[in-house]
Amino acid sequence: MKIFEGDYVLLYLDQRRTYLVKVEAGKTFHTHKGFIRLDDLIGGEYGSKITSSLGVDFVVLRPLLRDFIFKSTRKTQIIYPKDIALIILFSGIGPGSRVVEAGTGTGALTTALAHYVRPDGKVYSYEIKGEYLEVAKRNLNRAGMLDFVELKNKDVTNGIDEKDLDAVILDMATPWEAVSHANKSLKPCGTIVSFSPTVDQVVKTVESLKEHGFVDIETVECLLRGLQVERGKVRPHTLMTGHTGYITFARKSASIL
Amino acid sequence: MKIFEGDYVLLYLDQRRTYLVKVEAGKTFHTHKGFIRLDDLIGGEYGSKITSSLGVDFVVLRPLLRDFIFKSTRKTQIIYPKDIALIILFSGIGPGSRVVEAGTGTGALTTALAHYVRPDGKVYSYEIKGEYLEVAKRNLNRAGMLDFVELKNKDVTNGIDEKDLDAVILDMATPWEAVSHANKSLKPCGTIVSFSPTVDQVVKTVESLKEHGFVDIETVECLLRGLQVERGKVRPHTLMTGHTGYITFARKSASIL
Amino acid sequence: MKIFEGDYVLLYLDQRRTYLVKVEAGKTFHTHKGFIRLDDLIGGEYGSKITSSLGVDFVVLRPLLRDFIFKSTRKTQIIYPKDIALIILFSGIGPGSRVVEAGTGTGALTTALAHYVRPDGKVYSYEIKGEYLEVAKRNLNRAGMLDFVELKNKDVTNGIDEKDLDAVILDMATPWEAVSHANKSLKPCGTIVSFSPTVDQVVKTVESLKEHGFVDIETVECLLRGLQVERGKVRPHTLMTGHTGYITFARKSASIL
Amino acid sequence: MKIFEGDYVLLYLDQRRTYLVKVEAGKTFHTHKGFIRLDDLIGGEYGSKITSSLGVDFVVLRPLLRDFIFKSTRKTQIIYPKDIALIILFSGIGPGSRVVEAGTGTGALTTALAHYVRPDGKVYSYEIKGEYLEVAKRNLNRAGMLDFVELKNKDVTNGIDEKDLDAVILDMATPWEAVSHANKSLKPCGTIVSFSPTVDQVVKTVESLKEHGFVDIETVECLLRGLQVERGKVRPHTLMTGHTGYITFARKSASIL
Repeated sequence: MKIFEGDYVLLYLDQRRTYLVKVEAGKTFHTHKGFIRLDDLIGGEYGSKITSSLGVDFVVLRPLLRDFIFKSTRKTQIIYPKDIALIILFSGIGPGSRVVEAGTGTGALTTALAHYVRPDGKVYSYEIKGEYLEVAKRNLNRAGMLDFVELKNKDVTNGIDEKDLDAVILDMATPWEAVSHANKSLKPCGTIVSFSPTVDQVVKTVESLKEHGFVDIETVECLLRGLQVERGKVRPHTLMTGHTGYITFARKSASIL
Repeated sequence: MKIFEGDYVLLYLDQRRTYLVKVEAGKTFHTHKGFIRLDDLIGGEYGSKITSSLGVDFVVLRPLLRDFIFKSTRKTQIIYPKDIALIILFSGIGPGSRVVEAGTGTGALTTALAHYVRPDGKVYSYEIKGEYLEVAKRNLNRAGMLDFVELKNKDVTNGIDEKDLDAVILDMATPWEAVSHANKSLKPCGTIVSFSPTVDQVVKTVESLKEHGFVDIETVECLLRGLQVERGKVRPHTLMTGHTGYITFARKSASIL
Repeated sequence: MKIFEGDYVLLYLDQRRTYLVKVEAGKTFHTHKGFIRLDDLIGGEYGSKITSSLGVDFVVLRPLLRDFIFKSTRKTQIIYPKDIALIILFSGIGPGSRVVEAGTGTGALTTALAHYVRPDGKVYSYEIKGEYLEVAKRNLNRAGMLDFVELKNKDVTNGIDEKDLDAVILDMATPWEAVSHANKSLKPCGTIVSFSPTVDQVVKTVESLKEHGFVDIETVECLLRGLQVERGKVRPHTLMTGHTGYITFARKSASIL
Repeated sequence: MKIFEGDYVLLYLDQRRTYLVKVEAGKTFHTHKGFIRLDDLIGGEYGSKITSSLGVDFVVLRPLLRDFIFKSTRKTQIIYPKDIALIILFSGIGPGSRVVEAGTGTGALTTALAHYVRPDGKVYSYEIKGEYLEVAKRNLNRAGMLDFVELKNKDVTNGIDEKDLDAVILDMATPWEAVSHANKSLKPCGTIVSFSPTVDQVVKTVESLKEHGFVDIETVECLLRGLQVERGKVRPHTLMTGHTGYITFARKSASIL
């Protein structure tokens, strides 16, 4: 698997220091461990080593979905991969699904949704702040996902244009204001998944879901803890994120409409 | 969205009582809340209600990936959706990916892998016990995923037939014995993800990964807790699964071979 | 350390099967592993083995505080040792402290409070249900703690009789209704610790604490997980209690009164 | 409750900023919010406010056990109050107990042990590093606990001088090397509690406990998470300590000796 000019590569120093870099001819990439001539990468093999000007080795990795998510510009609070993973699974989406997302933010969740609905599905992503859409567009383009997304500078609480959706994913301050619109735009049995940091947001959203006849309503939170694996010194990591947000899942039930 | 004869439907009574049922003409489905004539479902709408012989309402839902996973026959210990979600995301796979899995078990993780690599990808699933393969085949067929899976009655510790794989997923007792084979069969930068209940399995697997030059090695565990959402009575659920297993992730690095 | 008639002993079979038994002359204790003549225990050594009529060995242990807590008659929801431990530490109490508790319930927390304020301190325990007080009295007596407790069949929301208290511990449905009384009865800098299962109880209690000028207000929850320790099979336990309650701590500040 | 010269007070600004200060006549205490003349505190009331030279209010609190623990000089890794609370409860100690602890470190756990065994009990604390003992002595003195502790500049793996102990508490790198000594020095049914960060330490310790006939062996870990309590914005705290250590508990069984 050769590295081409224009590719994005992940330069890996160690588990805490990785760099997502576009391979542009004639350019250099500077780190505090010396610089790397990007010309030296072109035509090389993915997985090989490259040595910086200071003699430090980096591994040249092909970026995965998770790398693009983590490296999204952090102009807004990013959603964690652990939560993205659960949102994807709970939503039931897959290749071919048509999904509405609100809000876009910097496009981290959008990137993941697009990744999984390819090649025939589509993500319609609503965002009221135009400046976020610019950032999201760059991030989606970098991850090669722009073709599968329609970015919309609209307020989802004013309505959803699309119909017969497989899922509506809400990562916004007032998800309960989007529930009635989601209900109208979802297929029968379509799913809604909402991500919210506070208990109060969850309560309002669940109440709105019940009012609109959604069933199988469930709220969970996910705690992820790393394990330090070294023979004789095995222990969970000291540092851990204590809370990101609650994930609420529900299914549309046509019968109460 | 009409219900057809031969469809699998999820009959939903409440969050703890759901039934995955094949709609067969002339048959009835019995629950302790009365029986349901499956003929009455044919031609109906997904999301509608059906009333049992005892006057109890069920909602007829279209099964999602998660339902197929949960309803896999439990002849072996099943892997939890929370772990499946993380394995999928960490592996980096998506539509078109070629993946080896070992072992198949009852096919819960296989179903999820197939779901996400559709329509052009493939899952090669190794299992030494023939009786599990029969169960897995039925579960995959039910979920409509059999076309995307090749079930192999082989021991992955004896070698992997496929080459240029995007990912190798290990859910087996001795994952460290499969690492050298995975290394040979993965693309450069391909991923390996291993799921193991014990610390000791993790240590041996991580040591083997290091020996074979894998990089970006990371082990995590995921705790999922439900929230009871009822205004005035909001609280986390009392019951919680304390441990399922550790997920270990790594990327192949061609450079050390 | 000899075993005397009238002692309570803990018969230990394995970690899940222990029995708190009063050593009464002429009596036998029946288990599904056979019976034990209690006469055989009298004059024996703590820590020694006793063999049942079916030839099964039990170890005769001297009960610890935790055993008395766990074996309190479960007529009401018991508070867990993990929470009791934190309540004790957060409250700042120790030998000599004067503490009000509400409500008594079956006396599990009361037993612990009494244990730690001995020999010169006192626990004043309020309970509106007379039948609980009878149970609590028996449990306290069994643990040898009755001398350090004054059980009061009173509603703490109607007022607290005592003054200059070191701490007020609330394990009741409406702790916020006791805050103003606690404030009047606490020493300057006295502490209040409240235990509540729901978020809504916590919010009301914290708001009441703020209104009454309490400072250093802090709410925590504690998750306890067991580790299965067997070389080659080390792993956290599968079963775990996901939630018991939130512990809220605060200190009285005289200055805002 | 008046403040006297020589008292330690806790100056409270907010939940993250508290200062443990000795009230010395003629001195001032400097913070980045201005200075406080300590003379102004003498004769005042605990719980009252004091205003700094920059007009910022502090509340003058009487330090609790937890404050002394938290403010122990951090020359060594400190043990967390959550773990201290569980160690105390699991050990079964209380007023009058005789306890051996190893190692002393800066005396945080020693302070807690002394607090609970007062007034008639005693803590014998072993530490091989003389410089730690100096720090521990200062911390114990400040907390008023020095009278209840005997600090010993000895290696506990060479033997325990005391006999008939109620409990042995191990917070050291190689707890398994102290088990045989603990076994000889404990009363029948006495308890041993060990605190260790790594899985490997736990395995070795549990194996040693089993070899020496200890029963009721149990290992747990405790996760503490704070809740942000503000109406409309309730949520667990983002920051959380993921791991401190495992607590292993066991009881001596005379019968296997």
